Amino acid sequence: MERESRYPMIDWREAWRRIEAELRPLRPATVGLNDTLGLTLAQDVVAGEDIPAFRASAMDGYAVIAADSTGPLRVLGQQDAGHSLPLVVTPGTAVRIMTGAAVPTGADAVVPVEHTREADGMVTLQASVQPGASVRPAGQDVARGDVILSPGTPLGAAEIGLLAAVGQTSLLVHPQPRVAIITTGDEIVPVDQPPGPGQLRNSNQYALCAAVRAAGCEPVLIGHIADDEAALREAIERAVASADLVLSSGGVSMGARDLIKPLLEEWGSVHFGRVAIKPGKPLTFAHVRGVPYFGLPGFPVSSLVTFEVFVRPALRLLGGFRALHRPRVTATLAHPIRHAPDRLEFQRAMLSPGDDGWLATVTGDQVSGRLKSLVGANGLLILPEGIAQFARGERVQALCITHPEVERAL
Amino acid sequence: MERESRYPMIDWREAWRRIEAELRPLRPATVGLNDTLGLTLAQDVVAGEDIPAFRASAMDGYAVIAADSTGPLRVLGQQDAGHSLPLVVTPGTAVRIMTGAAVPTGADAVVPVEHTREADGMVTLQASVQPGASVRPAGQDVARGDVILSPGTPLGAAEIGLLAAVGQTSLLVHPQPRVAIITTGDEIVPVDQPPGPGQLRNSNQYALCAAVRAAGCEPVLIGHIADDEAALREAIERAVASADLVLSSGGVSMGARDLIKPLLEEWGSVHFGRVAIKPGKPLTFAHVRGVPYFGLPGFPVSSLVTFEVFVRPALRLLGGFRALHRPRVTATLAHPIRHAPDRLEFQRAMLSPGDDGWLATVTGDQVSGRLKSLVGANGLLILPEGIAQFARGERVQALCITHPEVERAL
Repeated sequence: MERESRYPMIDWREAWRRIEAELRPLRPATVGLNDTLGLTLAQDVVAGEDIPAFRASAMDGYAVIAADSTGPLRVLGQQDAGHSLPLVVTPGTAVRIMTGAAVPTGADAVVPVEHTREADGMVTLQASVQPGASVRPAGQDVARGDVILSPGTPLGAAEIGLLAAVGQTSLLVHPQPRVAIITTGDEIVPVDQPPGPGQLRNSNQYALCAAVRAAGCEPVLIGHIADDEAALREAIERAVASADLVLSSGGVSMGARDLIKPLLEEWGSVHFGRVAIKPGKPLTFAHVRGVPYFGLPGFPVSSLVTFEVFVRPALRLLGGFRALHRPRVTATLAHPIRHAPDRLEFQRAMLSPGDDGWLATVTGDQVSGRLKSLVGANGLLILPEGIAQFARGERVQALCITHPEVERAL
Repeated sequence: MERESRYPMIDWREAWRRIEAELRPLRPATVGLNDTLGLTLAQDVVAGEDIPAFRASAMDGYAVIAADSTGPLRVLGQQDAGHSLPLVVTPGTAVRIMTGAAVPTGADAVVPVEHTREADGMVTLQASVQPGASVRPAGQDVARGDVILSPGTPLGAAEIGLLAAVGQTSLLVHPQPRVAIITTGDEIVPVDQPPGPGQLRNSNQYALCAAVRAAGCEPVLIGHIADDEAALREAIERAVASADLVLSSGGVSMGARDLIKPLLEEWGSVHFGRVAIKPGKPLTFAHVRGVPYFGLPGFPVSSLVTFEVFVRPALRLLGGFRALHRPRVTATLAHPIRHAPDRLEFQRAMLSPGDDGWLATVTGDQVSGRLKSLVGANGLLILPEGIAQFARGERVQALCITHPEVERAL
């Protein structure tokens, strides 16, 4: 039991600077279009053709020559979408046309069906039209040669639709990061086993696995490892061999059984081992055989809060995103708050829209063991060090950690 | 080619009222805890035990009797987390203890290691403590018998962690909705085939599949069906047999090949067939053999916008969510906007935080064919009917359709 950690205490901005400096987006890979949702593009996409590729009717109606649109016109036939007939509109004639169909040669406008009357093969127009009316020119949406999407673009439904429209069935993207999860601690029992005296169920494995999935990454479960140096060393070797990033929970404090930091030092690069935050002071960031490694504290709230503040942005960096952090807002306190001013504290809160911006209500007792303080929370209040009391009505910064009602992942 | 739809034009609020009135959350099913992320709970969860189940030390330090904490104390041994020894603290003695370990019988406080000095089996305390100091009482986080989560709760990482902590390895939840997707239209060719004259690639299948996934649901691809009554009837039968909700795109306008509405009437209940919105006027909502059916317009933007505004909230209702709609904000226009005042219009926009709330910039030309108008858009401006011009600086309502940079699904 040491009195003082050998790791200097750094502030959270410095911690993030060291993380960011050590990480690069994952090497791009070619992926089928249907598997790109939520990934980011790693290439320019240039349109190889016009969309639409032809002059298309924007309405159901009649394709006509605009200058010729007064008298009754002979209807040559009907142009359906997808069924181009070899019709040519000449003065005195028109073609019945459906939305999306190719406007026939000769015609330069479409008169909407509401402004027409057809009888005995002749159509009468009740309004005149300008050339180009209700005709979508070729290339209106996308012109051949346009750069339609650039590297770093996150791919959602609209982007995927646009890529499909230009025939891009596979793309260079930053792949989905694989994240190995190790839980540690002799006091932890499997979730389906009743805890004995001094024991706790392994909630971290489930919570971290869900957090990794909600961040759009693939969890790789390494399992639960006892506080045994050889077993931990083997688990870490297995983890770095099978993932793009490794998380462990527990074993980073100063107790005799806190073996993670000494082990990480064996591989050489521990970037930091202590951060001036609460919860999460013993957070550790290292590289093991070139793979980034986060040693999270064992308390359930500490591990999820440090995941939110540091690991999730790191995973987004690996995934090629430009926007890494949760949005930050200013919120007004609905009640006074006290906190220990020795470290910056992330208090869990419900942010609700008020008359004057966001209103923040803390989710009860904020001890690190109390997972209920995170249940239903959609915000983390950032309470700076050096100030012990915040009054009702005071304004503080908050990270919007999206609630699953808003952010639903598979 | 009809001049006038037989369906009355209803406004979007009335359309949503009819949808909401016809839908119920999916029947609850029991699911393993690891598969519950993003689903909603369909049961009360009552804690069967206290968390922690024992008095736990909140610090590394020494377990003592608070009233006895002045003199040097004999150290009886060390209590590690997860390793409860049969130690009893009596006056004149103490037990070295690790964070999370059970506080031994007799002791009523823990003195942090920083305030102690140990030598020759005796520990000296540099500060006195109050009874209960640094001791987490049993049940501090969760007390046995507490209702810890209620029906309707969306399950994120914190909720899943809490359920694991109380040993709930399986739960009654509303299952993930399965959504059948049919695309229609003779003018549509597969994405990997160059479109001929009058033809377009099937971008809707990819875009709708991605939109369904991003909404946390499972897409069931029925395929692309030509404008043929028998083929469409067969596809719809197949779709309703395999999904909780059916989407089709195209075939809902008034052209001769728009076969979806007449077909839906064969099964009996078309709840509406026209909505006074742009894009999306021909949106159709029905039931087929008891399964809800959305007939979306064929234009790519129309199908995605009506998905956002009507289908996504409907899917969330099936999933048991209480919060169904995207958050709505007030935004200030960065430039003037014109729109056809005959219908309410959803214009695609970028919402960015400004000095005075949200600033809205429309994403270029808003024609329904132009998918690029949705690329990068994080908002839908709600421009009411009856007003043709909006000035720069005017304030309008907007739906926050989350960009994938924020909402990343698998």
